[in-house]
Amino acid sequence: MNREKLITQIRQKKSFLCVGLDVDLAKIPPHLLKEEDPIFTFNKAIIDATHDLAVAYKPNIAFYEAYGLKGWQALAKTIDYLNTNYPDIFTIADAKRGDIGNTSTRYAKAFFEDLAFDSITVAPYMGKDSIEPFLAFKDKFTIMLALTSNVGGLDFQLLESESTPLYQKVIKTSLSWTNAEQLMYVVGATRPEYFKEIRKIVPKHFLLVPGIGAQGGSLEEVCKHGLTEDIGLLVNSSRGIIYASNEADFAEKSRKEAQKISKQMQAYF
Amino acid sequence: MNREKLITQIRQKKSFLCVGLDVDLAKIPPHLLKEEDPIFTFNKAIIDATHDLAVAYKPNIAFYEAYGLKGWQALAKTIDYLNTNYPDIFTIADAKRGDIGNTSTRYAKAFFEDLAFDSITVAPYMGKDSIEPFLAFKDKFTIMLALTSNVGGLDFQLLESESTPLYQKVIKTSLSWTNAEQLMYVVGATRPEYFKEIRKIVPKHFLLVPGIGAQGGSLEEVCKHGLTEDIGLLVNSSRGIIYASNEADFAEKSRKEAQKISKQMQAYF
Repeated sequence: MNREKLITQIRQKKSFLCVGLDVDLAKIPPHLLKEEDPIFTFNKAIIDATHDLAVAYKPNIAFYEAYGLKGWQALAKTIDYLNTNYPDIFTIADAKRGDIGNTSTRYAKAFFEDLAFDSITVAPYMGKDSIEPFLAFKDKFTIMLALTSNVGGLDFQLLESESTPLYQKVIKTSLSWTNAEQLMYVVGATRPEYFKEIRKIVPKHFLLVPGIGAQGGSLEEVCKHGLTEDIGLLVNSSRGIIYASNEADFAEKSRKEAQKISKQMQAYF
Repeated sequence: MNREKLITQIRQKKSFLCVGLDVDLAKIPPHLLKEEDPIFTFNKAIIDATHDLAVAYKPNIAFYEAYGLKGWQALAKTIDYLNTNYPDIFTIADAKRGDIGNTSTRYAKAFFEDLAFDSITVAPYMGKDSIEPFLAFKDKFTIMLALTSNVGGLDFQLLESESTPLYQKVIKTSLSWTNAEQLMYVVGATRPEYFKEIRKIVPKHFLLVPGIGAQGGSLEEVCKHGLTEDIGLLVNSSRGIIYASNEADFAEKSRKEAQKISKQMQAYF
C-alpha cells in the first residue's frame, strides 16, 4: 500500500477511522466460543460490518500471542481475509517491536512478508539501526511510538534535553533516517495539546492516534491541530467499537458505533 | 525461578554465561534441514552440549516469529525441553515487548504462563504502566532495556535531562515501581565505561549483558565494574557459540566456544 492509495481510500470513504482488533475471548459474545475459530469468526463479522466505514484495521498482536498457536492462526486468517476481500484497507500490526538490526529484519519479514501487513508499530528506544530495517521494505509503513496515550507515557517521553522533549527529539531524529517518508507516528488522543508542536516537525506524515473512546480522548481536539490537507490522521478505536455488544447483534452494534465516529469524521471533508 | 536459585546455580557452575538461541535456518548445519523440526533439533543439540557451562538460555523471539506457526512450535518445544530436562536453567524470552497495561498483561501471560519462561526483555519507552503488569508475576523477572549494545543505542539513551542521561533516568525511575526487585536491566558489553555509573544506581540488580563476541564487547571490561558479590551479571553470547560450526560437529564446537567463555568466567569465583 502506498500513500496515494491510502489517501484515495480516505477521501472516498470520508473516514479516517481505524478499528482495533484486540480480541479477548472473555469479552466476545459467548455464543461464538463454540465456533472452531472464535477469534477469526469474531473478526470476520466485525470487518464485514464496518469495512465501508473504516480505512484501517489494527490487530494488537499481544492479544493473539496470548493464545499461542491458535492465536497466530487466527491472526493469519484475519489478515488474509482482509487482504483478499478488502484489498484497499490499510492494515496495521500493532506489535511495538524494535531490536538490533538483524533481529528487526526478522520482525519486518514476519509482519510485512509472511503475514502481509501494510504497516507495523515500533518502539524507538534502540534508535536508528533498530528501525531502518523496517523502512527498507517498499510500500510498507513503519509507525513509531512518539507520544503515547497511557499514563506512563509521561515518565520518559516528555523529558527535556536542551529544551526539546524526548518525543520531539525522537520524531526529529527519525526524519534523517533512510526512507523516512515511510514513517508514521503514534500520538495519543489523550494528548491533543501536543499536536500543534508535532505538526511543526512533521507537517505531512500520517499520525496513528489511539486513545479516543475508552481512554477518553476527543476526536475534535485531535483534529484541531492534527489534520493536514491529506487528512494525515488514522484515528483508532478498539473496545468502543468491537465490544459494543456481546450478544447475537454484536456486529450490527459495532457498525452503529463505527457510524457514530465516521459521521463525526465526515465533517472534515 | 527466584533470585536465590539463580545465584546458587551460578555459584555451582562457576559461570554466568547466557546462550542466545537466535536460530536462523540459513545458518544452521544444512544436514538438519531434513529433520521434521530443524529449529528444535538444533536447539536441543546446543542445549545438551552446553547446559553445564551456561546458566541461562535466551531465545530471541523474532527469529521464531519469522517462521510463523512452525517457529512458535519450535519455541514452545525448546522452552518445554529446557524446563523439563534442566529445571535449574534460567530462561529469557528476548522479546523487547511493552504496551499499555491491558496489552502488557497479555504479553506477560503469553511468555510467563503459556510458554513458562522465567523472564522477558521489555522496552521502557511507554513507562510505568507498560512494565508493572510484567512485574506482577511472582518469581518471574522483567529485564528492561537500559543501555543497548547497538549503534542506535546512542541516538536517545544518552540524551541528558537535568544532567542525567536517559538510560540512568530509566533505571532510577523504575526502582520506584511495584515489585522493582524483580527487575533486571539490559546493558550492552560494548559500553563497559558506563557500568560504574549503573552500579551506583543498582548495586544489586542483575544485568543482562549482550554484545560480547560478534558485537565486540570484552568480558574483562564488563566484569571490572559490573560484578557484584552475587555476581549480578548474565553475559550473553549468541552467534559466537551456536554458529561455531555448521557441520556434523556443530554441537561439539559450540561446547568448545562456551568452554572458552566459562573458563574466563571461573576466574571471578
